[in-house]
Amino acid sequence: MTIKKILIVSGTHGNEINPVWAINKFKKQSSVNHKNIEYRYTIGNPLAYERGLRYIDNDLNRSFNFNKHSSDFNKDSSDNSAYEIHRANQLVKQFGIDGSDPCDIAIDLHTTTANMGTSIVLYGRRGKDFFLAALLQHKFGLPIYLHEKDQKQTGFLVEAWPCGLVIEIGSVAQNHYDPKIIDRFLIIISSLREEIKKLENNQIKLPKSLFVHVHQGSIDYPRENNGHINALIHPKRINQDWKPIKKGDPLFLDMEGNIKSYKGEDTIWPVFIGEVAYREKNIAMSYTKKEVINCSDKIREEFFY
Amino acid sequence: MTIKKILIVSGTHGNEINPVWAINKFKKQSSVNHKNIEYRYTIGNPLAYERGLRYIDNDLNRSFNFNKHSSDFNKDSSDNSAYEIHRANQLVKQFGIDGSDPCDIAIDLHTTTANMGTSIVLYGRRGKDFFLAALLQHKFGLPIYLHEKDQKQTGFLVEAWPCGLVIEIGSVAQNHYDPKIIDRFLIIISSLREEIKKLENNQIKLPKSLFVHVHQGSIDYPRENNGHINALIHPKRINQDWKPIKKGDPLFLDMEGNIKSYKGEDTIWPVFIGEVAYREKNIAMSYTKKEVINCSDKIREEFFY
Repeated sequence: MTIKKILIVSGTHGNEINPVWAINKFKKQSSVNHKNIEYRYTIGNPLAYERGLRYIDNDLNRSFNFNKHSSDFNKDSSDNSAYEIHRANQLVKQFGIDGSDPCDIAIDLHTTTANMGTSIVLYGRRGKDFFLAALLQHKFGLPIYLHEKDQKQTGFLVEAWPCGLVIEIGSVAQNHYDPKIIDRFLIIISSLREEIKKLENNQIKLPKSLFVHVHQGSIDYPRENNGHINALIHPKRINQDWKPIKKGDPLFLDMEGNIKSYKGEDTIWPVFIGEVAYREKNIAMSYTKKEVINCSDKIREEFFY
Repeated sequence: MTIKKILIVSGTHGNEINPVWAINKFKKQSSVNHKNIEYRYTIGNPLAYERGLRYIDNDLNRSFNFNKHSSDFNKDSSDNSAYEIHRANQLVKQFGIDGSDPCDIAIDLHTTTANMGTSIVLYGRRGKDFFLAALLQHKFGLPIYLHEKDQKQTGFLVEAWPCGLVIEIGSVAQNHYDPKIIDRFLIIISSLREEIKKLENNQIKLPKSLFVHVHQGSIDYPRENNGHINALIHPKRINQDWKPIKKGDPLFLDMEGNIKSYKGEDTIWPVFIGEVAYREKNIAMSYTKKEVINCSDKIREEFFY
């Protein structure tokens, strides 16, 4: 594709406010349009943003369930009355590839309460996504979390576009403004279009290998029969996102001082440790394995066809 | 008073979850009752706690408006249908000094997203509160914020008891468990009864002077006509709670890079800088002046009458 328009979404979760601020600041600072690639901006979940909530009825970033044809988008959803289903449809109708103001790429800006630093989240193995992620990994050295084969979690926003990824930055509290986090978003958004143009003009060359952390599963908090959490993430584990967990390493610590350890044989790499918004999804942390993905010239051609 | 029972309240704000965990842990660890002073425990706002919200209808810690006679407690409230008004009445009926299970002192445990460390909050100039605060300041070196003469904020929980104070610990995000924060609550609750007993038995002697930061006012974020915030707390000011602000020091930074500075002549000491929950109260930070309060023997006698 010749990339003409990139959709920048902030506030997909209404209590992740730093990306919204970053984009408003970016718009004020860069009044002149970029010569070759245009940005479009939208607040994913404006009502939730106004109220300081993650979402109103459903998580918007799990509300893009479709069968690859935008005409059938969310058609079979059982919960069409939900605000976020309407909003998802609205976004696709406006900015989707067959929409009124079609965008080729969607970049969805998120924050996490976990200590993940700046990272990229991909959903599934789409060549174009890999290429875009390779660009950002090459430029900024960002780690990549490939969130795939998770039947409990589907319908991510960027999946509704032919190419897209999430920029995820933490740790920062929900509804808390942090200038350092805002600056990190600005750095990426400020240079993204130029980097894509440079690539198209063969001014930079990406390495052939992409390093990713591939989703394997999630671990819930230990809970009592009534569902109440009865152990917290172990102090040695908290804030240690991306750092390997080996057999016998502590995971949780209960009120009596009992440790629950990792019993698996394989080393795993955790992400979203203690993410506040995931407690309701029964996730204390997710875990990954490392993989090297070949980012061939074929993918490059697919990106700039 | 001879102190027989102390009420320990956690979860007065339902999204401040570390004190609740700390108290549950404390109860498991200390199954034997203290010989002389008993603790009573309650979750201030159980429904909000269950839902991970600060409150349901109203801030519970602004819902204890009364005219010093428990029989008239919240009688004239214009909003008697609110969950928190019912809950405030219920707490006073059960644990108030004229209640079914009367407590002499109320300790209300809170967390803040501001970088205030461990501190004490007092409401108004009650001798008994000063004495209790002096005990904690003497033992732990804690700073004290005397929140008085703030007509916009009234009806704090501990005011419904003859003696009481807030333990406020931060920074920690709402709904986020932090073992370090939990430990800080445990340290104070674990030793409070023993320290009071030692004082009563003249085993320790408090200094005659109490150092407090006295509330002077609050500063809102700069806002547009539509109420939207258009500048954030300046990076040099964020997390600098308790540190003096002098004339010309930066307070806010807008999207264009313009600084809004402090213009007052007097040095002020800020608290609750950027507290997430206070944005809806139009407070970006509150500010104080230092004062030394005489903690005379008369107050000691009043405490242990």
